[in-house]
Amino acid sequence: MSLANYVLDQPRPVATPIPGVLHATWAGSRDGLSTLSVWRQSLVPGGATPPHSHACDEVVLCLAGRGEVHIDGVVHAFGPQQTVLLPANVPHQIFNVGPEPLETTAVFSATPVAVALPDGSALDLPWSS
Amino acid sequence: MSLANYVLDQPRPVATPIPGVLHATWAGSRDGLSTLSVWRQSLVPGGATPPHSHACDEVVLCLAGRGEVHIDGVVHAFGPQQTVLLPANVPHQIFNVGPEPLETTAVFSATPVAVALPDGSALDLPWSS
Repeated sequence: MSLANYVLDQPRPVATPIPGVLHATWAGSRDGLSTLSVWRQSLVPGGATPPHSHACDEVVLCLAGRGEVHIDGVVHAFGPQQTVLLPANVPHQIFNVGPEPLETTAVFSATPVAVALPDGSALDLPWSS
Repeated sequence: MSLANYVLDQPRPVATPIPGVLHATWAGSRDGLSTLSVWRQSLVPGGATPPHSHACDEVVLCLAGRGEVHIDGVVHAFGPQQTVLLPANVPHQIFNVGPEPLETTAVFSATPVAVALPDGSALDLPWSS
């Protein structure tokens, strides 16, 4: 397919209705992609995502800050210049455990990205994904 | 699925048999993913990828340098803090048109990543993708 724009600027993450989560969508279905989303997020100190999972693979690239991802009761610490692998359907929750914002780029092998809560219900995302 | 390692360090790109292309795979099938690859690449000044396409979506995040992507005879310039969208099956070629290395992170909605040359033949990649 042909796109209106093959090159996009990268907006900065802005506050969202999810407490502590700042978000910017850098690429996705809105831009003409069919199977790939790229998000830039910032998690405030002390903040956390909800526990959730996706039916697609996710990779998180840590740009700055100190994070933890909790998977099946195990804590995995990560920091700048590290990559977090989240295979499809693996429930996870990401925490900012440092004093600075946790800055990440997250990529997904689907667009839009469907998010499931632990009870199996869908989390309606407050952004175009 | 359960992974041996959910957090990985990020290797620096190293020279490959493709002239001018330095590469590091940051995430992919080798790490336990099934539908997502993340590559970190550096293209030397004056360098270019072969013209090629993929059956999956690709997004290129430009970290540093000045690039061009050529699509269907049209030149699209890009630079730091810009995102390049490459929908599935769109032939493209990326050039470093600046005096410094062109530093990129590329993500794909497939793993391993199949690369097709303009004549339809497969380009065998010299790295685990």
